[in-house]
Amino acid sequence: METAVETARVWIGGEWQDADTAAVFQAENPSTGEKLAPQFPVSRWSDCEKALAAAAEAARAMEEAAPERIAAFLEAYALGLASAADTLASTAQEETGLPFTPRLKEVELPRTIDQLRQAARAAREGTWRRVTIDRQRNLRSCLGPIGPVVILGPNNFPFAFNAVSGGDFAAAVAAGNPVIAKAHPLHPRTSQLLAEEAARALAGSGLPAAAVQMLYHVEPETGLKLVSDRRVGAVAFTGGKAGGLALKRAADAAGKPIYLEMSSLNPVVFLPEGMKENGSRWVGELAESCTAGVGQFCTRPNLVFLFGGEAAEQFLGDLASAFEKREPTQPMLSGAVWEQLDQSIAKLRKAGAELVSGGKKLPGEGYRYANTLLRLSGKQFLEEPETFQHEAFGNEVLAVTVRNEDELVQSLEHLEGNLTASVYSSAKGGDEAIYRQVAPVLRRRSGRMLNDKMPTGVAVSPAMNHGGPYPATGHPGFTAVGIPTSIARFTALQCYDNVREERLPRVLQAADQAT
Amino acid sequence: METAVETARVWIGGEWQDADTAAVFQAENPSTGEKLAPQFPVSRWSDCEKALAAAAEAARAMEEAAPERIAAFLEAYALGLASAADTLASTAQEETGLPFTPRLKEVELPRTIDQLRQAARAAREGTWRRVTIDRQRNLRSCLGPIGPVVILGPNNFPFAFNAVSGGDFAAAVAAGNPVIAKAHPLHPRTSQLLAEEAARALAGSGLPAAAVQMLYHVEPETGLKLVSDRRVGAVAFTGGKAGGLALKRAADAAGKPIYLEMSSLNPVVFLPEGMKENGSRWVGELAESCTAGVGQFCTRPNLVFLFGGEAAEQFLGDLASAFEKREPTQPMLSGAVWEQLDQSIAKLRKAGAELVSGGKKLPGEGYRYANTLLRLSGKQFLEEPETFQHEAFGNEVLAVTVRNEDELVQSLEHLEGNLTASVYSSAKGGDEAIYRQVAPVLRRRSGRMLNDKMPTGVAVSPAMNHGGPYPATGHPGFTAVGIPTSIARFTALQCYDNVREERLPRVLQAADQAT
Repeated sequence: METAVETARVWIGGEWQDADTAAVFQAENPSTGEKLAPQFPVSRWSDCEKALAAAAEAARAMEEAAPERIAAFLEAYALGLASAADTLASTAQEETGLPFTPRLKEVELPRTIDQLRQAARAAREGTWRRVTIDRQRNLRSCLGPIGPVVILGPNNFPFAFNAVSGGDFAAAVAAGNPVIAKAHPLHPRTSQLLAEEAARALAGSGLPAAAVQMLYHVEPETGLKLVSDRRVGAVAFTGGKAGGLALKRAADAAGKPIYLEMSSLNPVVFLPEGMKENGSRWVGELAESCTAGVGQFCTRPNLVFLFGGEAAEQFLGDLASAFEKREPTQPMLSGAVWEQLDQSIAKLRKAGAELVSGGKKLPGEGYRYANTLLRLSGKQFLEEPETFQHEAFGNEVLAVTVRNEDELVQSLEHLEGNLTASVYSSAKGGDEAIYRQVAPVLRRRSGRMLNDKMPTGVAVSPAMNHGGPYPATGHPGFTAVGIPTSIARFTALQCYDNVREERLPRVLQAADQAT
Repeated sequence: METAVETARVWIGGEWQDADTAAVFQAENPSTGEKLAPQFPVSRWSDCEKALAAAAEAARAMEEAAPERIAAFLEAYALGLASAADTLASTAQEETGLPFTPRLKEVELPRTIDQLRQAARAAREGTWRRVTIDRQRNLRSCLGPIGPVVILGPNNFPFAFNAVSGGDFAAAVAAGNPVIAKAHPLHPRTSQLLAEEAARALAGSGLPAAAVQMLYHVEPETGLKLVSDRRVGAVAFTGGKAGGLALKRAADAAGKPIYLEMSSLNPVVFLPEGMKENGSRWVGELAESCTAGVGQFCTRPNLVFLFGGEAAEQFLGDLASAFEKREPTQPMLSGAVWEQLDQSIAKLRKAGAELVSGGKKLPGEGYRYANTLLRLSGKQFLEEPETFQHEAFGNEVLAVTVRNEDELVQSLEHLEGNLTASVYSSAKGGDEAIYRQVAPVLRRRSGRMLNDKMPTGVAVSPAMNHGGPYPATGHPGFTAVGIPTSIARFTALQCYDNVREERLPRVLQAADQAT
């Protein structure tokens, strides 16, 4: 007789409740293929309805809460995460196959904790509010909370972008908004542990019980209904393009601001003089950036441009060797991610890209894939620029060898919006003329421009832009990383015209301004 | 034998060109019904295509232009408008029926000139750029131009919101973007005169010839194609809800940021203690705000709430008298606007609103409509809150008498997003308990909250918010009025990571930062 597998409860209105369950699912260990307990529910609409009603109520109380309470909650939560580091990292490792150390415990979790603390500081200091006062006209404005924020997290950062602990979460809460988190189904147990820490921190905070809520999963139609509900203030999504665009259509039709991080090839351009001088160093940097975390970063380089010729052949040969030496021991996040990478590579090859190395699933346990290098001429790229901008999420890179500067510029002019664009060039000035042609073209097609540096690694700095033109995101004016800037996504501009002093929010009162 | 009427030329790529004409139209003098010369073209797609190609080219040159050049152009344009004030105001009067003085010559044109000058100052000072520098990480970011901006102006402000001279225009140009202006078909000759001034100012500016372009009109399908073209950076629209939503769908689907100002009822709430004290003064303020400019302002009050009873009856009786005393001498902007107001009032009456005064077209020349007061109980409003939020653009107001505080709060909770929300209350403190209930409900549903003040009159101040939650606009985080804030709509966040000093935009270079 089989023991019934327990089904986890959703966190709604401050209570861990039995879900209104449409179906159940289990996470899987991608290193072994084994199913992990417990079962998690796919929620029906009634769970969303309850969460929305509670969030709408909580929004009002949050709006009136002292910034100190919000900051204290975020800090208590950060502290809780730090205490639970081992359990969190080992659970996340089981569910995602990402390394316990350094990645999960020493890099991603500390980053997540730091984000929560930076958000707490921003909440306390009010640096995100952009207070503007026109005394002569008795007119004041500031940014204020936008209302309940629905966050849908990605598969590739179980902590730092998790809907219930990551950058979107920290930013939404810092602005005084309740959050309805939709966990990613690849790491439900990690999300549950995070939410339990959030619940502990929330209990003592004086904030409303529904300030944070979490569902594990919903069916696609339910998700579309959720993000377009009238009680929602804004939506944040990190993930694939197809899902992102479906949510965007629903939210747009309902007039709900939606911030999406959907796809990016992160082009890297290697200029010819520098290539002669530093090609061998550049190979090492590119190999590292393409293969770190099995290439499962939004900012991994998926498309590189270099000038055809002897130096390029040397570079590509060295890159293939470096890829082969770095055969991944770490699996991909899931069987689906693994399959999708394989299919993407097949699609690029079918369209005419030549396989230089890799291009196959690796034998043995775990969803491992060989580091893959494809190549293509600039002429081929220009014939089908859309086809060759197909994102292959994982440890793959497509190198385009161009004949000359014109072909390079023409190719870059076909690029869609990206999170980043990098240019490597001679330190001695030999590439300046080309740089001046290339830089403006890349500038208009990327959120963050880099020189002599790979795009992986996104510092949590006020000067960061983790955003970019469509379809990398839905709006080029906002960043998902960097505090206080990222907070602006979850705010409304609130103006007070001739409003009596004692009725103004504290941040706009004269006494506050004088200090 | 009839003389052929001349057809005006469109302004594309720095040239006044014959349009690719799908149809022609003429403006009409709404005071007399007479058709005005010349004929204006409705452009086919090929005109848009030419303008887009030229704008894309101009965008790159604009990006590299010194802020001083942009500022000088805006100032030269402002000066040109000041010199042409009489011609502009008389032409606009002919086309719109708005008074030559004070409205057109003494209020709206000076405001327009002031907006251009404020935008010039912002361009020169760079106050809109939000420069953020993280020296430790060598990471810098600022706002930069978003690319060609398509502006579609409204019927009710021939200067201050005109696509080729108004607030959107000034903001888009200040950020270094080329503008493709789509004039409003009710005042094409005014738009032509404005564009001629822009052309004169542009000629000596050193900016590209396609920095500003103008079409008079396009067919709806062409407009949808225009705003979703890949070369467009962003779109701004001011006008009716149906047109705005159609453009929004097209732009959203293409991933183009679109800023819309679509509709607003601008609720005004009169609290009971204050009503007893100041009701007679409030009547005067409301009558003035509803009837100024024949109510053809985006911020005119269309919906007011007051507590039923003796004071309310007195108030509504006095309001009806004030309305009758102010019978409009000025026509509405057009026969279509006049018809639409009549139909909107009929629709509200059919749904159950009671006519207190007005409700009819006035006899004689010009599209004049009687100032109209409708009334309704809170109970009726709550039965069909959507129906009674139908915008009647013009000199009409719907008064809702509520039984008590609960009914008031419930009613307000049904409000859609608005540009403004006003509360009038006792100066002696008698309404504070109700205010505290009402204010948060209105706050979430409006961009600008007012106390003891009517919403008409939108100061061009950095602290202004002429924006608000959907469907008043498409995004609650942006304002269409107020410099430098309104400029943010037409910018992208641009980050530079490890970019060499000499390659940074000037505004991010260390030397610039030190001064």
